[in-house]
Amino acid sequence: MASNTFGNLFTLTTFGESHGAAIGGIIDGCPAGLELDLDAIQQELNRRKPGQSDIVTQRKEPDEVQFLSGIFEGKTTGTSIGFIIHNTNQKSKDYSHNVNVYRPSHADFTYDKKYGHRDYRGGGRTSARETANWVVAGAIAKQLIADISINAFTSSVGEITISKPYQELDFNSIESNSIRCPQTEIAEEMIQHIKEIKKHGDTIGGTITCVAQNIPIGLGEPIFDKLHAQLGKAMLSINAVKGFEYGSGFCGTKMKGSDHNDAFNKDGTTKTNLSGGIQGGVSNGMDIYFRVAFKPVATLIQKQETIDSEGNVVEMQGRGRHDPCVVPRAVPIVEAMTAMVLADFYLMNKTTKI
Amino acid sequence: MASNTFGNLFTLTTFGESHGAAIGGIIDGCPAGLELDLDAIQQELNRRKPGQSDIVTQRKEPDEVQFLSGIFEGKTTGTSIGFIIHNTNQKSKDYSHNVNVYRPSHADFTYDKKYGHRDYRGGGRTSARETANWVVAGAIAKQLIADISINAFTSSVGEITISKPYQELDFNSIESNSIRCPQTEIAEEMIQHIKEIKKHGDTIGGTITCVAQNIPIGLGEPIFDKLHAQLGKAMLSINAVKGFEYGSGFCGTKMKGSDHNDAFNKDGTTKTNLSGGIQGGVSNGMDIYFRVAFKPVATLIQKQETIDSEGNVVEMQGRGRHDPCVVPRAVPIVEAMTAMVLADFYLMNKTTKI
Amino acid sequence: MASNTFGNLFTLTTFGESHGAAIGGIIDGCPAGLELDLDAIQQELNRRKPGQSDIVTQRKEPDEVQFLSGIFEGKTTGTSIGFIIHNTNQKSKDYSHNVNVYRPSHADFTYDKKYGHRDYRGGGRTSARETANWVVAGAIAKQLIADISINAFTSSVGEITISKPYQELDFNSIESNSIRCPQTEIAEEMIQHIKEIKKHGDTIGGTITCVAQNIPIGLGEPIFDKLHAQLGKAMLSINAVKGFEYGSGFCGTKMKGSDHNDAFNKDGTTKTNLSGGIQGGVSNGMDIYFRVAFKPVATLIQKQETIDSEGNVVEMQGRGRHDPCVVPRAVPIVEAMTAMVLADFYLMNKTTKI
Amino acid sequence: MASNTFGNLFTLTTFGESHGAAIGGIIDGCPAGLELDLDAIQQELNRRKPGQSDIVTQRKEPDEVQFLSGIFEGKTTGTSIGFIIHNTNQKSKDYSHNVNVYRPSHADFTYDKKYGHRDYRGGGRTSARETANWVVAGAIAKQLIADISINAFTSSVGEITISKPYQELDFNSIESNSIRCPQTEIAEEMIQHIKEIKKHGDTIGGTITCVAQNIPIGLGEPIFDKLHAQLGKAMLSINAVKGFEYGSGFCGTKMKGSDHNDAFNKDGTTKTNLSGGIQGGVSNGMDIYFRVAFKPVATLIQKQETIDSEGNVVEMQGRGRHDPCVVPRAVPIVEAMTAMVLADFYLMNKTTKI
Repeated sequence: MASNTFGNLFTLTTFGESHGAAIGGIIDGCPAGLELDLDAIQQELNRRKPGQSDIVTQRKEPDEVQFLSGIFEGKTTGTSIGFIIHNTNQKSKDYSHNVNVYRPSHADFTYDKKYGHRDYRGGGRTSARETANWVVAGAIAKQLIADISINAFTSSVGEITISKPYQELDFNSIESNSIRCPQTEIAEEMIQHIKEIKKHGDTIGGTITCVAQNIPIGLGEPIFDKLHAQLGKAMLSINAVKGFEYGSGFCGTKMKGSDHNDAFNKDGTTKTNLSGGIQGGVSNGMDIYFRVAFKPVATLIQKQETIDSEGNVVEMQGRGRHDPCVVPRAVPIVEAMTAMVLADFYLMNKTTKI
Repeated sequence: MASNTFGNLFTLTTFGESHGAAIGGIIDGCPAGLELDLDAIQQELNRRKPGQSDIVTQRKEPDEVQFLSGIFEGKTTGTSIGFIIHNTNQKSKDYSHNVNVYRPSHADFTYDKKYGHRDYRGGGRTSARETANWVVAGAIAKQLIADISINAFTSSVGEITISKPYQELDFNSIESNSIRCPQTEIAEEMIQHIKEIKKHGDTIGGTITCVAQNIPIGLGEPIFDKLHAQLGKAMLSINAVKGFEYGSGFCGTKMKGSDHNDAFNKDGTTKTNLSGGIQGGVSNGMDIYFRVAFKPVATLIQKQETIDSEGNVVEMQGRGRHDPCVVPRAVPIVEAMTAMVLADFYLMNKTTKI
Repeated sequence: MASNTFGNLFTLTTFGESHGAAIGGIIDGCPAGLELDLDAIQQELNRRKPGQSDIVTQRKEPDEVQFLSGIFEGKTTGTSIGFIIHNTNQKSKDYSHNVNVYRPSHADFTYDKKYGHRDYRGGGRTSARETANWVVAGAIAKQLIADISINAFTSSVGEITISKPYQELDFNSIESNSIRCPQTEIAEEMIQHIKEIKKHGDTIGGTITCVAQNIPIGLGEPIFDKLHAQLGKAMLSINAVKGFEYGSGFCGTKMKGSDHNDAFNKDGTTKTNLSGGIQGGVSNGMDIYFRVAFKPVATLIQKQETIDSEGNVVEMQGRGRHDPCVVPRAVPIVEAMTAMVLADFYLMNKTTKI
Repeated sequence: MASNTFGNLFTLTTFGESHGAAIGGIIDGCPAGLELDLDAIQQELNRRKPGQSDIVTQRKEPDEVQFLSGIFEGKTTGTSIGFIIHNTNQKSKDYSHNVNVYRPSHADFTYDKKYGHRDYRGGGRTSARETANWVVAGAIAKQLIADISINAFTSSVGEITISKPYQELDFNSIESNSIRCPQTEIAEEMIQHIKEIKKHGDTIGGTITCVAQNIPIGLGEPIFDKLHAQLGKAMLSINAVKGFEYGSGFCGTKMKGSDHNDAFNKDGTTKTNLSGGIQGGVSNGMDIYFRVAFKPVATLIQKQETIDSEGNVVEMQGRGRHDPCVVPRAVPIVEAMTAMVLADFYLMNKTTKI
């Protein structure tokens, strides 16, 4: 019920504003006895953190996670795992000009109307800083379902799109460039494009593709917790996401059934995989793949006209340190949410049969 | 938790297999004192039912809903509303050939592996017959949020796509043709295309666009119950759906922030609406619009090779009465799920402020 | 969230008023592959139904359950199990005198104030008829956790109380008398007392003791789903229940720790069992036992003064067919709720360890 | 679902072990715009903290709560409220002797069997230290439902019991003595009794009575979230609780209906209140009162024989600083859980009627 909680059995509940003392969360339902690699968790956070390269925001935040409970002698105890990430770089004065201003295509207006009272500093609770919490929980989920491999990567920036199917890409090269695109010649184009966009104080959208492999058959709970429906909800929870498609996706709408059906091999695998590894809401053991659409970041380093809470027209300009393109830093977030969904269904699937 | 339940406060829990005695559900959380128009509910069911036109399945099912509780003297009492729709047209022998056969791109294989024991008749629980239950609940939700208007329509069939923005379409003409497309000249093309496809025993995909208007500001519960995330989950729960996008959607990924931002008018409305009526997961009062991708129906009236549960290659052919294109009958389902999501958030929003 | 749903993984959602067309429910989360003994389920319903003996209401209701889904070829399929029990004996005119009258110590007043509109016939949704649904779900739960034995029995009626600890009672004799008390000489006293009370159109309270044996170690989910807390909630959900205690209960409050502690045997069992089989909210493998307090039925076959919805003083008299003591018919209900709680925790415990 | 979460709309999710770095929690669903008195929250924590008097444990823990989010400029923002209480007084070496020892009537054995790996220091997650989190959330709940007054007090210690009905007690004197009993002459007896018990290194049980007044009509959600059922669950979640009764409770089982029924006054109030302010699971506006049974603390400052995890008989003796009677420090905990339940139902009741 609580809208700050994600998941059914493996759950994450979070708190925190961008300019409060700290953000953090509580992971509940992680089975006991899981030996945790804490460095691997911090490593995921480092992939998300600002300041990694010259195409992302230059804010400096160490984003160090501290675990407060649920882990004893290096292993989970089955009790809730509390964690905290201190905010070390809040410059509240940076945002004083925003007190009553509704930034276009942000949540300022809707939060003000919904709640009547809001923390306007840096977007408050709506800041993507929140997703650091998700990366922590996702990193633990990854360790829980260690046999499954999850790889997300940038598949387009603006009009620039990878030209190869994922099967021809080397996921090991995702981290080799700052845009996190495994087709390296395209990656270079994307990076140049973002730099150009950034020069004008503008921003650009993009897509991320995620591939989950070595999936057990049977994950997903029909009717209203279909695997792809929950993946979709997870992705649409990420800031700036405008769309989700899996398997053949929107392209599939143009196909005939005779072309779209995935014929079986004798062993139950399928010759094609337009289903995207999910049939009837349940994994069939083939690769799960999906694509997530990110809009351009709304904060521009340009002048914009907007209104304040009294309806006065005011001029504003984003200052400081913002991402010209959200996509590279969103890659680990997509992976984290995917891992949480799969871990949750992995646990739920344990009670399916007597 | 229960995966056959949808919603938080306004909830629907369902049961039923395509070839059991009945399907039905329980609606919980509908406020007391709502005067129900039962004819309007049945009318929504009639929009979904088979046999309406020559481009949908010719099965005849009356799909009459019977309410069993929660309504007294024409008004809701605040207690749970039980309802039942008897299955009158189950021809189980039609499906005897399916006992051990895994139909391609159906859920036969995944259900068999997940549960070990399944009702193979007509797809059992995975049949889209289930969605009749959703239409009932959605029709009640529509009456609960009667000020909001929800219109879904067919926006593409295969490659044939409407050419006008929704603002230029007359929603009153949606029901004027069998494909439920308000651009009537395109509708005719779509219908002819489906007839052609059907002649070959084949099927075709399509998209549905849905527009919700006159939305109160403030619907949607951050962080993990964002309005668009829950709409996305709702849509992805519908059989055959492969994708969801709202507002600018996948197109928005190609845009620059300076083009994408929705500038404010003085009254808090926006000059453009690429946000799709939702900012930060919360409705801003502008139109909510989104697009849903449906794959082509997997059941073909053609011979297909497939396997049985022992891994033997067998030849199969769909018989009888199937939809060549799922889209026209899915229009009321999309509206129903939209209504349920909005009704749920409408109730949740009552507790947002002191 | 839905308040007509009970349980976490093994859930029951119900509907139905005493004088509607039917009552029923949906069981979700029952694992696939469970071979169901449908006669045993009906048998439990028969234990609860009215008209069994001369110390309970003489209403005649067959209370036949019909399953509508989720069971195929005698076994559960893992999908939701819908069921219905038709109301065959509603005499609505019997209740016409109640339209505006608030019966003392019933829910008429509170429902009217809470909902503004209610089904006044026979108590509507507040009727204990609802518990027939629970008995169905409990009977399935019993079959899911067939190794566990659950025995409830009447331990007191008014001042008449069993004088032996449960260990000295023969549970096989519970069904040998109409009050369901295994200490047969006391049972006879209880029955005579109820008959005497009934003669005066009055009613009497009582207690039920329940013992669950052969419990796996580890059931119960701390912190907020402790086994005894959920058992307590389950019991307090039963109509007319005013109290719950487990293990040493209220008597334990008078004891010293040195007398109360359960010393261990070498094998992990305990020499005494004042803990009632639960420590820290988790079962320890010893017998779980608890006691449930039922108030006297509020409907008297006597004249009472009360008020109507306008605040006028009116005289009323219960007519017809009511239980002079709720306890004998509540025995199978207590067992059913116990079974549901244990089945739920049995499933949840499957995800505790990696 | 998450078992470390309590509540439906107003929820608390917690973490923390007695000897970890900190405990804490996340409150979700608190409406925006609530002006918080932070001193009042700390004051409630002070009522619970150890070392207040000579009849409770002499541990010194400041138990200072720090809020991390959800509050801005002194008012709630409607986002989740994260808080933390640092553990300042963990002496882990004190517990090194417990590594493999199962203390009688503690949760050591059950947690070890359930989870296979546990934090044995000071009871880990099973420590009543967790309840400090509840007091924080309860203190906020109290401020949300400020019109309702909630008073808990010690009503018995061992055999010593208050002799007056609550209506004759002055709740203002509850805090006037260290046992928190408003009947001051009885309070003195209780205190002397505890001192005597403590001298022998023994412990004693007791009961707490709680009275909630000025309750709005209509709180409680039938069928499975009845007000008293959720109160019962809340109380049974508190460490050491063995029983719960409300209104007439177990005494009511000995009464006749003609004596037990609460006759109405013309204004809808009742002449008596054996119902305990709740009818059909819904508040009727009369006082809600209930009684909670606490067993004697299991940790004795005496030698006890027990076993270790290998089944060896070992001798153990509680050391240091334990409560001889849990009841005085449990008074604010009972109030906190009551406040959380009432606040939750207060919010839920906002969606009952159209």
